[in-house]
Amino acid sequence: MPSDDRDPGAPPDAGLLSPVRAGTEAETATSDLAYLAAMLDAEAALARAQARLGIIPAEAAGTITAAADARRFDLVAIARRARGSGNPVVPLVADLRALAGAAGEHVHKGATSQDIADTGAMLVAARTRRVVLAHLDRALDALAGLAERYRDTPMAARTLGRQALPTTFGAKAANWLMGCLEAREGLAAVPLPVQLGGPAGTLDAFGDQALDLVAAYAEEAGLARPVLPWHTRRTPVAGLAAALAVTAGALGKIATDVWLLSQSEVGEAAEAAGAGRGGSSSMPHKRNPALSTLIRSAALQVPAQTQVVLAAQAAPHERPAGEWHAEWQPLRECLRLTGGAAETAAELLDGLEVSPESMRAGLDGLLGVLGRDPGPGAAAVLVGQALDAYRRSRG
Amino acid sequence: MPSDDRDPGAPPDAGLLSPVRAGTEAETATSDLAYLAAMLDAEAALARAQARLGIIPAEAAGTITAAADARRFDLVAIARRARGSGNPVVPLVADLRALAGAAGEHVHKGATSQDIADTGAMLVAARTRRVVLAHLDRALDALAGLAERYRDTPMAARTLGRQALPTTFGAKAANWLMGCLEAREGLAAVPLPVQLGGPAGTLDAFGDQALDLVAAYAEEAGLARPVLPWHTRRTPVAGLAAALAVTAGALGKIATDVWLLSQSEVGEAAEAAGAGRGGSSSMPHKRNPALSTLIRSAALQVPAQTQVVLAAQAAPHERPAGEWHAEWQPLRECLRLTGGAAETAAELLDGLEVSPESMRAGLDGLLGVLGRDPGPGAAAVLVGQALDAYRRSRG
Amino acid sequence: MPSDDRDPGAPPDAGLLSPVRAGTEAETATSDLAYLAAMLDAEAALARAQARLGIIPAEAAGTITAAADARRFDLVAIARRARGSGNPVVPLVADLRALAGAAGEHVHKGATSQDIADTGAMLVAARTRRVVLAHLDRALDALAGLAERYRDTPMAARTLGRQALPTTFGAKAANWLMGCLEAREGLAAVPLPVQLGGPAGTLDAFGDQALDLVAAYAEEAGLARPVLPWHTRRTPVAGLAAALAVTAGALGKIATDVWLLSQSEVGEAAEAAGAGRGGSSSMPHKRNPALSTLIRSAALQVPAQTQVVLAAQAAPHERPAGEWHAEWQPLRECLRLTGGAAETAAELLDGLEVSPESMRAGLDGLLGVLGRDPGPGAAAVLVGQALDAYRRSRG
Amino acid sequence: MPSDDRDPGAPPDAGLLSPVRAGTEAETATSDLAYLAAMLDAEAALARAQARLGIIPAEAAGTITAAADARRFDLVAIARRARGSGNPVVPLVADLRALAGAAGEHVHKGATSQDIADTGAMLVAARTRRVVLAHLDRALDALAGLAERYRDTPMAARTLGRQALPTTFGAKAANWLMGCLEAREGLAAVPLPVQLGGPAGTLDAFGDQALDLVAAYAEEAGLARPVLPWHTRRTPVAGLAAALAVTAGALGKIATDVWLLSQSEVGEAAEAAGAGRGGSSSMPHKRNPALSTLIRSAALQVPAQTQVVLAAQAAPHERPAGEWHAEWQPLRECLRLTGGAAETAAELLDGLEVSPESMRAGLDGLLGVLGRDPGPGAAAVLVGQALDAYRRSRG
Repeated sequence: MPSDDRDPGAPPDAGLLSPVRAGTEAETATSDLAYLAAMLDAEAALARAQARLGIIPAEAAGTITAAADARRFDLVAIARRARGSGNPVVPLVADLRALAGAAGEHVHKGATSQDIADTGAMLVAARTRRVVLAHLDRALDALAGLAERYRDTPMAARTLGRQALPTTFGAKAANWLMGCLEAREGLAAVPLPVQLGGPAGTLDAFGDQALDLVAAYAEEAGLARPVLPWHTRRTPVAGLAAALAVTAGALGKIATDVWLLSQSEVGEAAEAAGAGRGGSSSMPHKRNPALSTLIRSAALQVPAQTQVVLAAQAAPHERPAGEWHAEWQPLRECLRLTGGAAETAAELLDGLEVSPESMRAGLDGLLGVLGRDPGPGAAAVLVGQALDAYRRSRG
Repeated sequence: MPSDDRDPGAPPDAGLLSPVRAGTEAETATSDLAYLAAMLDAEAALARAQARLGIIPAEAAGTITAAADARRFDLVAIARRARGSGNPVVPLVADLRALAGAAGEHVHKGATSQDIADTGAMLVAARTRRVVLAHLDRALDALAGLAERYRDTPMAARTLGRQALPTTFGAKAANWLMGCLEAREGLAAVPLPVQLGGPAGTLDAFGDQALDLVAAYAEEAGLARPVLPWHTRRTPVAGLAAALAVTAGALGKIATDVWLLSQSEVGEAAEAAGAGRGGSSSMPHKRNPALSTLIRSAALQVPAQTQVVLAAQAAPHERPAGEWHAEWQPLRECLRLTGGAAETAAELLDGLEVSPESMRAGLDGLLGVLGRDPGPGAAAVLVGQALDAYRRSRG
Repeated sequence: MPSDDRDPGAPPDAGLLSPVRAGTEAETATSDLAYLAAMLDAEAALARAQARLGIIPAEAAGTITAAADARRFDLVAIARRARGSGNPVVPLVADLRALAGAAGEHVHKGATSQDIADTGAMLVAARTRRVVLAHLDRALDALAGLAERYRDTPMAARTLGRQALPTTFGAKAANWLMGCLEAREGLAAVPLPVQLGGPAGTLDAFGDQALDLVAAYAEEAGLARPVLPWHTRRTPVAGLAAALAVTAGALGKIATDVWLLSQSEVGEAAEAAGAGRGGSSSMPHKRNPALSTLIRSAALQVPAQTQVVLAAQAAPHERPAGEWHAEWQPLRECLRLTGGAAETAAELLDGLEVSPESMRAGLDGLLGVLGRDPGPGAAAVLVGQALDAYRRSRG
Repeated sequence: MPSDDRDPGAPPDAGLLSPVRAGTEAETATSDLAYLAAMLDAEAALARAQARLGIIPAEAAGTITAAADARRFDLVAIARRARGSGNPVVPLVADLRALAGAAGEHVHKGATSQDIADTGAMLVAARTRRVVLAHLDRALDALAGLAERYRDTPMAARTLGRQALPTTFGAKAANWLMGCLEAREGLAAVPLPVQLGGPAGTLDAFGDQALDLVAAYAEEAGLARPVLPWHTRRTPVAGLAAALAVTAGALGKIATDVWLLSQSEVGEAAEAAGAGRGGSSSMPHKRNPALSTLIRSAALQVPAQTQVVLAAQAAPHERPAGEWHAEWQPLRECLRLTGGAAETAAELLDGLEVSPESMRAGLDGLLGVLGRDPGPGAAAVLVGQALDAYRRSRG
């Protein structure tokens, strides 16, 4: 493995331009190192699955699994050598073979680059999804608390920015809750399968063992078993990217409302004041909705990343010259931006400060204009509906 | 209803720039007239639901249902008057009230514009989805036939445009089949609920009858019953747009392969020659993959339309000043482009001409380079897997 | 020309879902009829240019020009017949030849479908651009008036939704002004060339007259003369779509600010109250920022349409199987949404109501928090800079 | 500056998922370190400009400039602390003040975070643009060479994938050349101004010196002088992103053609065989169009990134809560993907192997079908036109 002449203390992308995910769990779960480790995990899982079926010696599988340790690889060099073949698996396999010594000849047997890259991406997705779902659960708990606590807290509903009629903050929170709940269900339901097809997608190297091998590979990798190789049928990545965009949108809805409620002239909600939160470089008197801003920055980016993944479905033949390669970074952005937004939303909602007094004052102005108080209608009943759905989802 | 001074014979958008959907069933199902009719259906369903609960007189509901006939409305005038309020429901309600005479006072009771526009959009979506699913079914049948017929027909698999290893045309068709099958399942599963919340989303006008009214409204409209109003929780439209993009992508994958297989230098497949199909304005010797081209034109547009719908989730308060309005046309484009692509794909696949001889000749060249014939591996088994999944889906 | 069995009184897209452009000049300029007329104009210009060079008889050019009258063509039928070839020029040429009688053989000489479709699109673009620029000019005049009138009207600047420091409404208007001015300059500078290349882009039918013919064609069409045919070099459409997105964004910025300033709790600006403007279907007490909402609906859609056009640049060979076809409708949407937004913005700005009193009251609250009045800094100077730039642009 | 507990040898994004830019000059020019350095350069330039006007002591400016050395800052920690304020400038200023000692009080005087972040982004853009333009120039030289060398080399033009009529490879290269030339001109013409406005965009801290300070700041930073602060008028970033997308598209066009020409069945062009170029992890017989694939992967991503930047124009008030923050990463992706694509294209074109024999053979097949040889028309003349334009651009 060639050494790298770049300063190792100068990471090319530490999230300086993406504070929504800087230092979050999703960032770690989607780092280049995480992808490298996942691709190596895919190679190791393949070797073990092949050993189970007697395709390669059991010993070789053990050696390969031990060698497949990301810390032993030169990530930057692999990234650069990827330019030669168009993907990082070619240099990764070369290095893994070298590290595996005599077992090296059994590395990557019958596989193609895409098998490893796609399975690696699904492993990263599965690991990041766990992170996202955990943060969503924390956000859901906080939302359920808000909906319950403020079930009967009246405030003005606003349409096109104008006060319209009374609602309750509980009803607003209930809608946020349902949005996150539906997004969570959609995201959790996306199947994340292994990929194995070999160069032509025909599993040509495996004869009658082909389907058994795929099953064993899925077990070893801890991923779902696909009906067919999906190298050129991108439903898994398309569905994942779409579910992430729906999730980012549900979180972005909350952040948008919090931003608007925390305007100086409204003051009905505020992000928790905390050390290093919401400060301005020039205006010490300001308390900014910084977490909402971060979440919104993600919600405004993810749909465009999803667009790339969706458009890449219409790709040529058994491996495209570009469409597949264009998926990688946008899918990662979907994962880490949504994951960062979920972690940020959990923090935001845990600390959200609500001002029933300001809500009451704002509403009084509206009722003066209306000349009557139509009341919050079925708001409390709707809150109950949402809380029931939340509790059912918690089993 | 004011008359229109525009030439009624000059429709502003007859699909001249969108041949993929010109004259298709999806075009009719998503026309402005179809939207107008659906919004009127929503008003009528609401009136009948309210009559069932005794909120308005049964007679009024009958009168309103009779008046809610799109042919009695001036579509162009309503479209233009929509500029005043930002949405077409305000003028539509005014005209419906006028047409309903004494029952007019019972029109739109307790509803807000968005209730009708959103429910109308869901009705259009439900009707168009039926069309799309029917065309997908026809395409799936054709694909299953291709997979079965060409299960053992060898051809070269191509990666990055280069012949790689043998596969079979059956395996290629099986992958197309699975893509469409998964897309169909995703699309069919999207819930399409009615919308009812009133101006603040609190169902304020309906007191204890609120949930019963929503249930009755859903029954009358033939749509799903939502847990909560979703005026600012856009999961239904976001999920629908995403499922349509996945579908357009699955169809686009097929079209891309057919285009490439029908290149002059490849000649392994061709679109059916037919009257008025595939002609060139300047080159009579050419037979173009015109249907594939149309399908691809849709697959290249739909993801961007979906992007708008996904991004619109992060919208302010109880009704946004723009995000909601930005959804309408892109969602329609998703529906009609995907619907047009599905109808076109069914036509394409029904008539697809496959040349096993050209496939054999191409493969022979590859095998010469390889110096061996690795065979099609598990291709036949994979075809069987896909056909099993297809048959299960057919019940 | 076959008759159409569809109800001619049921236009498939009259703008019901796009009130921002319903009934606007840009809608008319970008209708299917306008595209049909422009493609016929392209055929006629080509014939006249060829007559000037003696390639076809002068008489034939006259006959063709007379026959190229859109009202004599069955638009809906051409749209549907376009499915056969993938583009509407094939049936259009057939019908034009039939109408031209003996001169029919001289129609479309040496041209290919794309020559006519692209030139037609550029003619539509040129005509719509004139409309857009005129509305931008009206908006610019209104903006200059606002900047001047409110040069010294203090108000609170807001960052992340929080009152930050004093500014003036004049400074805000000056920024709006500069945004529109820069967008206008960018849009006016986009070259809109004719397209002529013939089937292979080699002008093969014209021998030594090729360049002279292109020059004459450009003159007859009233468009720019390209260095080369641009059938597969899409800089003209890519640049146009980008300039329109920048314009829509500059208008969207204004609309966003007006929406926020007209919130119930802010009340520092309001759209003009007018017959049928800003009404609600359910809340008579509300005055909605309906025009701002319309403009924002366009600004949220245009970038995604532009994305399709930009992505379509990377297209295969001398004519792609889909990428070109995918451009048409998105480019039209860019034109008509931006045009509608410009017309709407001109109306919005002409009638914008500004409340210096509310601005003063809001600012007083901020100054109380600050405990000092830092004043509006160089706001007045910046207004002067912007007005100078505006005046220079007006010559 | 707090220490970082993350393994410094594990860069979170070394381009493993973006081989098109891994190790390229554009990657270095757009790294987080490059952004950090550019923001520090902006602070230093501001200090020097203020010293020139006597606003701060000259000595302080020298101390600040010396302290503004990116290697002395903890990048990862700043990225994470950015979450508190929503942007990295707040922690950066704190650390710079600490490093500047007694001069610390003069750091960031009268500026706001956005002044530094935006100016930093423009500095990165200016530096990366130089890189991109240099690679474009190398590509243009290679293209001019190809156009000239193969001016009269006949080949089949292909429309919708079907051989249509003869053209020449020179004509194809001439079109590539013009596309890159137009893109280069557009990119070079985008103004890249400094940003300076202070918290409210009013330059409130600078009194009568405001405009002079902006001028001095622009000189010190080596950027253009804006008419007004553009904190909420995003024309500079929107125009830049659009120009980069046009450039990526022009390069993607070339890559798409090369991919198709290098198909096994066509063989009319091939990427240079080189050590580590075009290899497959499973098929040693293959020579893949790896560089074309990389370029296409960029061309398929950049338009979506541009979409985010274009959409972010419609942002609230004097600083938005999300839209501005959403611009950063997409703009960087536009810069580094386009830069990587340009460097890759220069390599591709320098080594492109063209096979006039295969072109001739393919054309002969077409001519047999045609039954005549219409010849390449004005192809040679068009090549001349493009070469003239190229030479003019070279001065």
